Amino acid sequence: MSTHFKRILYGGDYNPNQWPKDIWQGDMRIFKDAHINTATINVFSWAKIQPSEHEYNFDELDEIVDMLSKENYDIVFATSTAALPGWMVRKYPEVMFTDYEGRQHKFGGRHNACPNSFVFKHYARELAYKLAERYADNPHVTCWHVSNEYGNECFCENCQKAFRVWLKDKYKTIDALNRAWNMEFWGHTVYDWDDVVPPNALSDGIGSEKTAFAGISIDYRRFYSDSQLACFKMERDAIRSVKPDAFVTTNLMGTFKGLDYFKWAKEMDVVSWDNYPSYDTPWSSIAMTHDLMRGLKDEPFMLMEQTPSQQNWQKYNSLKRPGQMRAQSYQTLAHGADTIQFFQLRRSVGGCEKFHGAVIAHAGSENTRVFREVAQLGAELESFGDRTLGSRNEAEVGLIFDWDNYWALEYTSGPSEDLKYVDQIHQYYQYFYKKNIGVDMIPVDADFSKYKIVVAPVLYMVKDGMKEALENFVKNGGILITTFMSGIVGQSDNVYLGGYPGPLREMAGVWVEEIDALAPEQKNKAKFADGSTAACGLLCDLMHLEGAKALASYEEDFYAGMPAASKNTYGKGTTYYIATRFEEEGLAKILDQAVQEAGVSSVIPEETGLEVVTRVSDTTRFYFVMNFTDEEQILPESLTGKKDMISQKMTEHGMKLKKWDVLLLEEHL
Amino acid sequence: MSTHFKRILYGGDYNPNQWPKDIWQGDMRIFKDAHINTATINVFSWAKIQPSEHEYNFDELDEIVDMLSKENYDIVFATSTAALPGWMVRKYPEVMFTDYEGRQHKFGGRHNACPNSFVFKHYARELAYKLAERYADNPHVTCWHVSNEYGNECFCENCQKAFRVWLKDKYKTIDALNRAWNMEFWGHTVYDWDDVVPPNALSDGIGSEKTAFAGISIDYRRFYSDSQLACFKMERDAIRSVKPDAFVTTNLMGTFKGLDYFKWAKEMDVVSWDNYPSYDTPWSSIAMTHDLMRGLKDEPFMLMEQTPSQQNWQKYNSLKRPGQMRAQSYQTLAHGADTIQFFQLRRSVGGCEKFHGAVIAHAGSENTRVFREVAQLGAELESFGDRTLGSRNEAEVGLIFDWDNYWALEYTSGPSEDLKYVDQIHQYYQYFYKKNIGVDMIPVDADFSKYKIVVAPVLYMVKDGMKEALENFVKNGGILITTFMSGIVGQSDNVYLGGYPGPLREMAGVWVEEIDALAPEQKNKAKFADGSTAACGLLCDLMHLEGAKALASYEEDFYAGMPAASKNTYGKGTTYYIATRFEEEGLAKILDQAVQEAGVSSVIPEETGLEVVTRVSDTTRFYFVMNFTDEEQILPESLTGKKDMISQKMTEHGMKLKKWDVLLLEEHL
Amino acid sequence: MSTHFKRILYGGDYNPNQWPKDIWQGDMRIFKDAHINTATINVFSWAKIQPSEHEYNFDELDEIVDMLSKENYDIVFATSTAALPGWMVRKYPEVMFTDYEGRQHKFGGRHNACPNSFVFKHYARELAYKLAERYADNPHVTCWHVSNEYGNECFCENCQKAFRVWLKDKYKTIDALNRAWNMEFWGHTVYDWDDVVPPNALSDGIGSEKTAFAGISIDYRRFYSDSQLACFKMERDAIRSVKPDAFVTTNLMGTFKGLDYFKWAKEMDVVSWDNYPSYDTPWSSIAMTHDLMRGLKDEPFMLMEQTPSQQNWQKYNSLKRPGQMRAQSYQTLAHGADTIQFFQLRRSVGGCEKFHGAVIAHAGSENTRVFREVAQLGAELESFGDRTLGSRNEAEVGLIFDWDNYWALEYTSGPSEDLKYVDQIHQYYQYFYKKNIGVDMIPVDADFSKYKIVVAPVLYMVKDGMKEALENFVKNGGILITTFMSGIVGQSDNVYLGGYPGPLREMAGVWVEEIDALAPEQKNKAKFADGSTAACGLLCDLMHLEGAKALASYEEDFYAGMPAASKNTYGKGTTYYIATRFEEEGLAKILDQAVQEAGVSSVIPEETGLEVVTRVSDTTRFYFVMNFTDEEQILPESLTGKKDMISQKMTEHGMKLKKWDVLLLEEHL
Repeated sequence: MSTHFKRILYGGDYNPNQWPKDIWQGDMRIFKDAHINTATINVFSWAKIQPSEHEYNFDELDEIVDMLSKENYDIVFATSTAALPGWMVRKYPEVMFTDYEGRQHKFGGRHNACPNSFVFKHYARELAYKLAERYADNPHVTCWHVSNEYGNECFCENCQKAFRVWLKDKYKTIDALNRAWNMEFWGHTVYDWDDVVPPNALSDGIGSEKTAFAGISIDYRRFYSDSQLACFKMERDAIRSVKPDAFVTTNLMGTFKGLDYFKWAKEMDVVSWDNYPSYDTPWSSIAMTHDLMRGLKDEPFMLMEQTPSQQNWQKYNSLKRPGQMRAQSYQTLAHGADTIQFFQLRRSVGGCEKFHGAVIAHAGSENTRVFREVAQLGAELESFGDRTLGSRNEAEVGLIFDWDNYWALEYTSGPSEDLKYVDQIHQYYQYFYKKNIGVDMIPVDADFSKYKIVVAPVLYMVKDGMKEALENFVKNGGILITTFMSGIVGQSDNVYLGGYPGPLREMAGVWVEEIDALAPEQKNKAKFADGSTAACGLLCDLMHLEGAKALASYEEDFYAGMPAASKNTYGKGTTYYIATRFEEEGLAKILDQAVQEAGVSSVIPEETGLEVVTRVSDTTRFYFVMNFTDEEQILPESLTGKKDMISQKMTEHGMKLKKWDVLLLEEHL
Repeated sequence: MSTHFKRILYGGDYNPNQWPKDIWQGDMRIFKDAHINTATINVFSWAKIQPSEHEYNFDELDEIVDMLSKENYDIVFATSTAALPGWMVRKYPEVMFTDYEGRQHKFGGRHNACPNSFVFKHYARELAYKLAERYADNPHVTCWHVSNEYGNECFCENCQKAFRVWLKDKYKTIDALNRAWNMEFWGHTVYDWDDVVPPNALSDGIGSEKTAFAGISIDYRRFYSDSQLACFKMERDAIRSVKPDAFVTTNLMGTFKGLDYFKWAKEMDVVSWDNYPSYDTPWSSIAMTHDLMRGLKDEPFMLMEQTPSQQNWQKYNSLKRPGQMRAQSYQTLAHGADTIQFFQLRRSVGGCEKFHGAVIAHAGSENTRVFREVAQLGAELESFGDRTLGSRNEAEVGLIFDWDNYWALEYTSGPSEDLKYVDQIHQYYQYFYKKNIGVDMIPVDADFSKYKIVVAPVLYMVKDGMKEALENFVKNGGILITTFMSGIVGQSDNVYLGGYPGPLREMAGVWVEEIDALAPEQKNKAKFADGSTAACGLLCDLMHLEGAKALASYEEDFYAGMPAASKNTYGKGTTYYIATRFEEEGLAKILDQAVQEAGVSSVIPEETGLEVVTRVSDTTRFYFVMNFTDEEQILPESLTGKKDMISQKMTEHGMKLKKWDVLLLEEHL
Repeated sequence: MSTHFKRILYGGDYNPNQWPKDIWQGDMRIFKDAHINTATINVFSWAKIQPSEHEYNFDELDEIVDMLSKENYDIVFATSTAALPGWMVRKYPEVMFTDYEGRQHKFGGRHNACPNSFVFKHYARELAYKLAERYADNPHVTCWHVSNEYGNECFCENCQKAFRVWLKDKYKTIDALNRAWNMEFWGHTVYDWDDVVPPNALSDGIGSEKTAFAGISIDYRRFYSDSQLACFKMERDAIRSVKPDAFVTTNLMGTFKGLDYFKWAKEMDVVSWDNYPSYDTPWSSIAMTHDLMRGLKDEPFMLMEQTPSQQNWQKYNSLKRPGQMRAQSYQTLAHGADTIQFFQLRRSVGGCEKFHGAVIAHAGSENTRVFREVAQLGAELESFGDRTLGSRNEAEVGLIFDWDNYWALEYTSGPSEDLKYVDQIHQYYQYFYKKNIGVDMIPVDADFSKYKIVVAPVLYMVKDGMKEALENFVKNGGILITTFMSGIVGQSDNVYLGGYPGPLREMAGVWVEEIDALAPEQKNKAKFADGSTAACGLLCDLMHLEGAKALASYEEDFYAGMPAASKNTYGKGTTYYIATRFEEEGLAKILDQAVQEAGVSSVIPEETGLEVVTRVSDTTRFYFVMNFTDEEQILPESLTGKKDMISQKMTEHGMKLKKWDVLLLEEHL
């Protein structure tokens, strides 16, 4: 157990620069009431701290840093490079991104830089360097925060040139590139690196989601993720050139599609992320995303942003109910967070985020429900002495998430436009969530041997080495669960010939001959050995057993009787292959079997509507117990007689938890 | 009572230039059968009357004017500048507008000029001048009609430059501009007027409806409305330079969002507008729009366009049912019109409006249902001697409509994307409409003292001076009704800090702590003192009484028990604050109370399904009585024994009005 | 009876160039098992066979041709010009098309050439010439296939210039053009050919479907169809310059809107087309499209492409059920095909069509359901000796389909946006389809005298000569069935003045005074002489009989009692005018009457759920009998005692056909 932080950071984005100075001291007083101990500053101040090409002005920033230092804040120091200053756009218009439609943008918005603009990079690096020079030795500067929510898209001339160089580095020869992208198709052969153009609406894009050549589009995403990562690394390295042990992050966005976060995490000292569920996002989905963010480095993470109450940019920006923010925060800690930070500490007076919730509302006082809830949580977090800090989450189940696969699957033209990667992953995650079985979200190159079960839904793209790694895992006794639309293509999106699921075929012991697509109004049913049936749809593999044993068979249509799910013994282990999208009950029937076979255990022996998650420190196992259901839940017997770190009381037999209620139970090891 | 017109103008757009001359005399004969006495000419003839840069040709126009003069028509003379001639676009492509996507358009369409194009303005001015020179002394030229349906959008380089100048005039310093737009947010500070770019899809626009900086976007709308208004004034002044007492208008479009019509009306001699409801537009909505058009100058208006029967550009272009056009026309007169004009007198042979209804159909004769209905109405209007001309509408209720507020509210990101300005206004109007209570649609700078009740729904933006004006109104005994999403921002879209509803807080006696957004599938309920309940949704303020008295309280969710509507005594008056969007019955319960308290009376004492509206001349009160319901309605007793000016009969006890039936009763004063 | 082919071609697109050579011989063996005898090659190989501006390389193509020749394939030789080679786009970017938004595209996709690019045309011509030079004398080259699925859109500068030239050829003078397009409307007059710009989103387009000036837009479609046709003819003529009797086609796409296929067919030696129904396309719609493709030349056609099982680009790419592909293929033959070809013979390894079905799946073997079905059909087709080849379809009913009308009707603004040309045509076709009455899909300049009934639904545009032709047909005893929205405009989209249905008025004996548009939630009803009623909607003509006799009258709304359908004796014949869109039963009631009056007979006397279609050779009448319903169908008595050419058995009384079952019965003449 280790962590960079000395306490649970509790606070968030703070932009005093947007306010008159006479308000600052009042803010300090109010924040103290809420036990706030951290502020993320300088997120969007480039225009202020560098008001022209050759002029820097840190006076105000100095004052802010002094004030926060005096108050003993942990300062999360942003580099401010996520929105271009006006003078730069005026003099160097090419710093602005060019969109998917091929239109270079003018001054406006944020996240607006082309990551391959030399001018942008020059000045971004210089700014990061100057900030580090000035502030990195301040002991209150706990963490550096580069830019903000990386994630735009650019298709400009500079990106085009950089893409060609990236491709040349990767493929070495034009021939190799033509082969990788199967450019003989539609006579798309390129003869020269200069024939390659970024895949957008003016070239190979089909609508805004599809593409004529997935190979090109996937490589562009890889290139672009790398391009933005290069910007991150450049600023990080500028800071480290001044302060070699600077601790550097940037805030990620969960299942955001644009960037390969597993690759990014390797370059980050800690993962931080922004959690903005909608009013109707399932709690299992939030939990999954936390686990994914934890999984990026397999370490505790920072919750860099959440709203104390309300969003502004969703369709319907529901208030968080009393207790909801608190319960959501404990869920965040439960899944591995070492910080709870808000966007933002004081609500903006103007601009498009002025209806985004904040610790201090427009009313300007501590006399609000939302503030009181923030203060209560702050007091609680302070009270249990940061004991959970750095503690680890444990899991016997690994669920593969892979950005290459995400891109490839969703670029695919056919068989069904309703097939969405995150939805499929979430359905599997949800099963374990409801059982309170811990899950690690893992990359394709994870050490599978740590897990009893590895789940790989819609593992469409099987890259080099994965076949061997998965086979080794199963051979040595592991249980692999995979599904329809797996094992189809290699890393360049070319099909594995010879029969689906290609490299997974041997270990799954099945051959998928055809894949039927069902329209939303169409369903099939599958029958299990126990005679029960379950609805299924979306896609139905028509498969043949090659050593595997059927677990369920289709009941309808011309493929009635064919297996809808199977298991296959392979070495000392087993591969489950689930051939269709089952609805919840059917899927549970299959996964129950795998869980039983693997001897995977839930956090507690009882079934319950409560979410129960554990973290473990060197001395203690922490049980986070939360009720996200609408009904009162009785505390499971196995959790009675334990001390709740929040209330300092012992749990009792028959104790009830209302909606949003939380317990944090300790168990000494 | 005064009016510019000597008779009710009855006629409409007439384009004989699109037809061979041998048809003209036939038209004259047919129109006479319909009692048509006016023609709007020269609306889209620029290409013909100025066939090249230095050549004008008025021969045909002379003939048209002569013919109409001979027939004693009131000529509404358009200046023809709403569609650019081909030669101008060929030589000066910059005269064409540049759209929201930043694309300069090519020759095509109409309403296609950039209002900041010097070339366009030069030639438009010259044309207006030449037309005035030639025709303004003709006594039959009753009215000038500048351009047509102003309303495009342009984001070109010329507009950009003009915007910067407009801003400099308004803000004087860059600092003031940065403060007004809160440019510290997202580091958007500008250093130079040249850093400002129009807010469109390539800069600060978010989708086509939203914006990163409402301050910029609202100012751009103000600027653009002013730019087009400058074009109007330029042509108007060119005409007046020849004929100082020329009577000048342009046709407006009801609740069209793009232009601040209250500002425009100040420059117009009379308001005219085009009324094109859809098959499913509520009659209350049409009535409201008439009242808005009357309210622009608080004077009678011209109904410049309506279709005798069918539209062409709607999804489903339903025929007007027999009697519908007549009833709609009387409704128009009832709400303040002094003219009834059609688009158009003869239906086009080609072009995209060829399926738009007209007085003379493609059949070319007077032998059509539609013509007969036009002729009947013409005879009626002629028969009662224009007695209603110039008579005034009276109202004890003023309903605020404000374009700045319209823009600001709908640019807002959050709390709900379903919040639409005109819908909210209409719900309040509809209550009074159903009670036959007269309403004036008023600007924010109206003289409130004329009204017993002022209604200000979703008064999101409270500009300088409004707080004082509304407070004075209430202090002196007025009743103000306002709602959720009021008092939030000032004129630059920055929030009033200190607690909602900001400047309205004291007079409303409430503090709104939070605003919940409900998705369409979500509802709350409110309970009234009498124990009844009413559904509500969309937005729910969570408010605290600060002197006000609750009228209803939420029944559900965590804010059950908090007030959902309140009233507050302030000085001699009262402020009602309605904290959520009630469905019809709930809203009526509150408004009934306000109406009773204010002593506002309906036009007649009885409740009825009929629409009953009055206009008053020096000697007579006119009752317009119309049945827009599907059921027969019995004439209310208070309207019996009065003379119907149309049939010249006395109304009798128990008399029934079928759908579309109309009475126009006179009552001598 | 005549046909170019010596056997039913059975095979399809084959791209060995996309595969390593070691696979080729295996393919040959597998295809032989499926009785495949034809391959379409070189469809997208330009990049390979012309790797630079001045270099051709036919080595691999030689090998492919040699291999197929050795195996005695009928080679369908594509010219490969449907996708531009990279080197050409790099050097001459103007070869790429410019889209409706005015954006010139970059290298990417296919169907990407501007048809008015001189560079493209130069090299396309040269390529076709060189291919012909090298391969046209090969006796196995049965057919040339120019380009592929013509159909993009281009609005570039070169197209603009060519459009102006095309217009000058057509109209001679600017005055004539201004009159044709009614340019006086909205003052749109052009003074010079250079004032004309292509109608797209930047000029006269309104959204993506409508236009301010239908006259311009229709002419642009004509011009563009001609431009692409010129490319086809250019390549065809290059081939013929080498091999005068070369047999040349290109693959069409059914009711594809962009090209006037009747005009194209005149230039093609045989029509070929690609049939890709969706999972929910009605079988009557597929049948109609086959009949349209046959009707283009009134000759048997090639089915150039269908999928053996699955599509990839539809929303839900359902598998073809066992027997479905076979039944669909027999339906294709029944309606006039002389070939059955698949896209494609081997499924792609990469690119956006990799999930498109093929004869050889990714599994790579003949051991698949799909392959077995392909092989079974191949064996069957081979077995009955190509006896159906060249046989003719016969019909007593002609159904007019006209691309000018298609364009004009759908560009029309009003009366209802739900009015779609193909839907309306299909409703009429479906009636005959369900009765097993043969229908020819005919152009407006067909020889109507061949038919007892001519059906002309929504014959909106009546071009010069059509009035006379239709009148002659009816005068001489023919029965014409026409409908609402007919006879409205002439060939330049200007209205026939004097009363609808203009030129059809006299023969229909009706005058349509008004056209009501009903929203989807609105319906009317019509009552027939027998007292029955039928629902109708969409559009309702309000018409007066001028000699015609009412067949049904509206039941509701203010036009209750007015005729909803009529018949009129004209000369020796009759015109039926159907004034509204009836639902199926109502329409059948009217058409039953016309069929009875005309003495039109079904293929068999019985009513049946089976599709029964005949083709006739010099010696034999073939009955294609297919069950596309979900229920078993009993073979009609009149079809018993006939020999089934497939099974070689005699049909028996009471015989049942299951879903997808097919009989091919012979009857000697």
